[in-house]
Amino acid sequence: MEPILAANADLAWMLAAFVFVLLMFPGLAFFYGGMVGSKNVLNTMTMVLSTLGITAVLYVLVGHGLVSGPSINDWGIIGNPMDYLGLTNWMTDDGSGSTQTLYFAAWFILFAAITIAIVASGAAGRMKFSAWLVFAPIWLTVVYFPIAHWIFAADGDGFSGGFMLNDLEIVDYAGGTAVHMNAGVAALALALVLGARRRRMERPHNVPMTLLGGGILWFGWFGFNGSCALGASFLTQVVILNTLLAGCTGMIGFCAIERWREGHATSLGLITGSVAGLVGITPAASSMTPLGALLVGLFASAAVAFLLSFKSRLKVDDTLDAFAVHGVGGMIGTLCIVLFAAESAPAGVQGILFGGPIDIVWRELAGIVITCTWSFVMTWLIAKGIDKVMGMRVDEETEIAGLDTTIHAESAYEIPAAGVGHVPGLSNTALPRTSTTQSATTEPAPTH
Amino acid sequence: MEPILAANADLAWMLAAFVFVLLMFPGLAFFYGGMVGSKNVLNTMTMVLSTLGITAVLYVLVGHGLVSGPSINDWGIIGNPMDYLGLTNWMTDDGSGSTQTLYFAAWFILFAAITIAIVASGAAGRMKFSAWLVFAPIWLTVVYFPIAHWIFAADGDGFSGGFMLNDLEIVDYAGGTAVHMNAGVAALALALVLGARRRRMERPHNVPMTLLGGGILWFGWFGFNGSCALGASFLTQVVILNTLLAGCTGMIGFCAIERWREGHATSLGLITGSVAGLVGITPAASSMTPLGALLVGLFASAAVAFLLSFKSRLKVDDTLDAFAVHGVGGMIGTLCIVLFAAESAPAGVQGILFGGPIDIVWRELAGIVITCTWSFVMTWLIAKGIDKVMGMRVDEETEIAGLDTTIHAESAYEIPAAGVGHVPGLSNTALPRTSTTQSATTEPAPTH
Amino acid sequence: MEPILAANADLAWMLAAFVFVLLMFPGLAFFYGGMVGSKNVLNTMTMVLSTLGITAVLYVLVGHGLVSGPSINDWGIIGNPMDYLGLTNWMTDDGSGSTQTLYFAAWFILFAAITIAIVASGAAGRMKFSAWLVFAPIWLTVVYFPIAHWIFAADGDGFSGGFMLNDLEIVDYAGGTAVHMNAGVAALALALVLGARRRRMERPHNVPMTLLGGGILWFGWFGFNGSCALGASFLTQVVILNTLLAGCTGMIGFCAIERWREGHATSLGLITGSVAGLVGITPAASSMTPLGALLVGLFASAAVAFLLSFKSRLKVDDTLDAFAVHGVGGMIGTLCIVLFAAESAPAGVQGILFGGPIDIVWRELAGIVITCTWSFVMTWLIAKGIDKVMGMRVDEETEIAGLDTTIHAESAYEIPAAGVGHVPGLSNTALPRTSTTQSATTEPAPTH
Repeated sequence: MEPILAANADLAWMLAAFVFVLLMFPGLAFFYGGMVGSKNVLNTMTMVLSTLGITAVLYVLVGHGLVSGPSINDWGIIGNPMDYLGLTNWMTDDGSGSTQTLYFAAWFILFAAITIAIVASGAAGRMKFSAWLVFAPIWLTVVYFPIAHWIFAADGDGFSGGFMLNDLEIVDYAGGTAVHMNAGVAALALALVLGARRRRMERPHNVPMTLLGGGILWFGWFGFNGSCALGASFLTQVVILNTLLAGCTGMIGFCAIERWREGHATSLGLITGSVAGLVGITPAASSMTPLGALLVGLFASAAVAFLLSFKSRLKVDDTLDAFAVHGVGGMIGTLCIVLFAAESAPAGVQGILFGGPIDIVWRELAGIVITCTWSFVMTWLIAKGIDKVMGMRVDEETEIAGLDTTIHAESAYEIPAAGVGHVPGLSNTALPRTSTTQSATTEPAPTH
Repeated sequence: MEPILAANADLAWMLAAFVFVLLMFPGLAFFYGGMVGSKNVLNTMTMVLSTLGITAVLYVLVGHGLVSGPSINDWGIIGNPMDYLGLTNWMTDDGSGSTQTLYFAAWFILFAAITIAIVASGAAGRMKFSAWLVFAPIWLTVVYFPIAHWIFAADGDGFSGGFMLNDLEIVDYAGGTAVHMNAGVAALALALVLGARRRRMERPHNVPMTLLGGGILWFGWFGFNGSCALGASFLTQVVILNTLLAGCTGMIGFCAIERWREGHATSLGLITGSVAGLVGITPAASSMTPLGALLVGLFASAAVAFLLSFKSRLKVDDTLDAFAVHGVGGMIGTLCIVLFAAESAPAGVQGILFGGPIDIVWRELAGIVITCTWSFVMTWLIAKGIDKVMGMRVDEETEIAGLDTTIHAESAYEIPAAGVGHVPGLSNTALPRTSTTQSATTEPAPTH
Repeated sequence: MEPILAANADLAWMLAAFVFVLLMFPGLAFFYGGMVGSKNVLNTMTMVLSTLGITAVLYVLVGHGLVSGPSINDWGIIGNPMDYLGLTNWMTDDGSGSTQTLYFAAWFILFAAITIAIVASGAAGRMKFSAWLVFAPIWLTVVYFPIAHWIFAADGDGFSGGFMLNDLEIVDYAGGTAVHMNAGVAALALALVLGARRRRMERPHNVPMTLLGGGILWFGWFGFNGSCALGASFLTQVVILNTLLAGCTGMIGFCAIERWREGHATSLGLITGSVAGLVGITPAASSMTPLGALLVGLFASAAVAFLLSFKSRLKVDDTLDAFAVHGVGGMIGTLCIVLFAAESAPAGVQGILFGGPIDIVWRELAGIVITCTWSFVMTWLIAKGIDKVMGMRVDEETEIAGLDTTIHAESAYEIPAAGVGHVPGLSNTALPRTSTTQSATTEPAPTH
């Protein structure tokens, strides 16, 4: 009976971690929504949130088997969806009190959906919503499900899983390949097919919104990384601490590079750096000491910031920096494993700087190359195909007017400008600390 | 000793789930606040948040006994508050390590408060705050506490609970009756007594705010539905998955109907649909397979969207659609139980389409009719009574000026319009990706 | 084996509670960001979020030992950092399944960072960011780490902890001294050294933002207070309920005083009151009955509101009211323990009104005096020192232009004013409920 009780406590944590991850969706929508112009914010948020609907249906029908089912022909390429069709075979409690198939299905839906939600960022401000609704399920099926099978499906008792995890034995704690590099590279390929925005250097229309969104992402990341420990254990504690630390030094690394290259540390840089640090630690969270985690966050975010400082010279319009943050961030995190993973950490991997076996270089490199190649090539083909058939990009008039009014018949804000429409008595009636009249000297009067 | 440990793990989940539900309050305030005009946003948010203060005091004093106490005279109508007065009798640990009375009191406070917070939406933009402070505690006492007793208080060892749960044996997993139908119908009654807004078709002033608020609601809903499993178990896993799925297809159902009826799928429709799907699954979360949950979300949200497409022709001003979303959404969810509940799901209920016994039709119908009738009639009487005594509605001048400045002596925003007050050097100093000058072709220059 | 399982369930709760606390950072950034003017919002949010980066590095290197290490010379003044340098000695699972050092390090990082994030509020709108980056680590080392050692480091088997907890036996459940009074007093000292803002009575630029931020703080507070129970137990349930109740009556106490003194209850008052109530219950959460918790929230928030009603007459510019809310709120909470702590509550402390021993007066008073004196004097000295060396305050031109553009080269918003740039066809194409044309009578036309 005792294992049941222990498993029960693990389940309590896994349930909470799942819920944390769910908040990443409005968080990511806020994060990206604040970065685009005020005419495209609702379209951007809709693309992010729509991934939940698309993924859930696809996943219940066939997705869970493709990812977690036994590898067809034991090739480690793709799972067999038969047992999991509609998830109807899993309604019986196995009595263990532990995390069962229905939980894992819910959990994997969020993993799949957050991946394609990051991909959406590459298309911000210029993609037809109808084309998105065609692209998303095809991309999940052709790109995400296979890669997720390669890295997430473990071999088991008479069960054959994915080749990257089991044959290449790639060290990727929580989805550096299937989630982050995959999403970053796919966003790049999608952006390439779509072409650059007409107003490429659009300013973020609401930076506080992006800061909160990024903070919510960080919150959810503890669920994301923490749930990959599959319970409440010492490993989970290591992962939680390392995830915290890499996010913390992420803000330092990015802002330091910004200050050096541009002369200012920005709030947007701070939060972008934290996200880059979190991306970096995602594959590495179980193989680092706390000092190592501090370095992972620092290196991953500094590399992203350095790359972005050349962005204005690059031709490709990786609109919201998904390739830089998730693609490059994920690669640097993997590189850190290769270099200075600590044998004392739960994963037990030793980096080559500490004298670890050199073969980790080839294995991790193989993981990066295979993931990025498959993701880039297939995404490009899918996007090109859809572009041929129905057109991917909105017309010029639509793009200039913004996608919110044209596609969704909505506009995001109806807020009067400061100084317009004030009730004269306001300043005299409210608590002084909150509403005393502004001194006229510093605020430009509403000009007419 | 072992059961203690298991209960301890259940408590860990219940505690986390409670905290999730708390976030629904700022979430709901944001959800509704974004939908109203910028002159009423603070009043709307204040009404939502004030429910916590009102409910907590009332609940500690008498509420918990009225809901969870033994039924007076064993009639199943209302609980006896004597044992629970002030909750002072429950300060001793029973040693079980499990969820005890003080937890349940905290938890039920949130359930009660979120219900009346939904009711508040029916009064947005035109109700005196003083009248609200009178209405809310009376409504809780007369409407919510009895219905909650009927459906939440289970019979026990020498303990007599509510008649709807124990005598009618209504299937309502997590509050489709006491929370959602009740709130939706009461909001409608309150809106009827108040009369329509003068500017009825006010545009939402901040849609991103509503999208985040809705996302936070979804997050909290996992706590709401998940905590009704009373621990971390297989049931909880089923409920979590079903809650996810119904929210996901909720966005699909609503947007599909919108597209058909209006020609566009909106972001507001997406999030409203998710909420409608979540309302639908609330009574049904324990009685559906995953495929069933997908259908519940789809049907509930499609029905709500279809109803709302006629809204402009209706006379009643159900201001923020509480009746449609919560009332109708809850009814459709209940109807889905009747039709296609799966016997294999934890609740073990068989829908009539699968050959289940027909009496579930009358039982569920009785639950709907009794709840809605009590809620509508009593809410209408309370509101009318208060209107007679002190007046419910603000005067015309106040309504036109907006309730934020007139009632609260505040205004929500002090944000300069785009293009006003920019520091000329800004565009040249910051990281290019974040702040390059806008091209002048697409953005209207600040006009003077 | 059984204790392992129980500990495992405790760990599940502790992990979730940690994640809740993390969300307090974007929450606090939003809370403060909404209260300042639109030209300082990004600087304010950056100061708050930057505390994570600063604290994490310092804490991993030396902080955890200074706080939690064995007291040097058994004096109870400061911990020995040697064992914890870099946290590298703690990578081995002790096999207990329980909460271990790495968890506690992560947890204490958040406690330290949130404390100095509150201090940041005293400097809003006028402090050089470079000076902040010097001030913060010195302040943590000189002020926070010692106080945290005094009150958080418990004596153990051959282990000597802090003098306030072990020798003075001060009752402070979750950091009323080290976190709240300390932060409030330090914010005051920092504000004094900086001097008042030029536009002292600046109106909050985005009140809904502050309301959401405050709501998120409340959410995180359950993690903060709840994690101090060190597991999922009866104590945790008491703490959760009391934390809820004090936040609830906090809004009542503040709004009642506002109404009395100013004639209006504001939304900002509601959320400030809730935070004040939460501050009040922080030291008292384990020593109150539910009725007591209701009173703690009421008294703490009423006292804060009463003090703030004189704010405009005071010379010191405690910019975002950290001294009032956290300093005074924490003192009132402590006073409530002295007066009416309930022996039946888990802490087993009896207030003097219930006949408890009078010595609690001196002990709690000593805690307040020692904490506040150390915090004020050392903060003032540090700030003065930095001011001498590098200057703390931005120049006048920078302050008037706002710190966002001058320090960070960013501006927060790029949002067109209501009525500007609407697509004419919008009102006719969208779902009526969301976008019908505004009646022209109530909204000022865009003026040119």
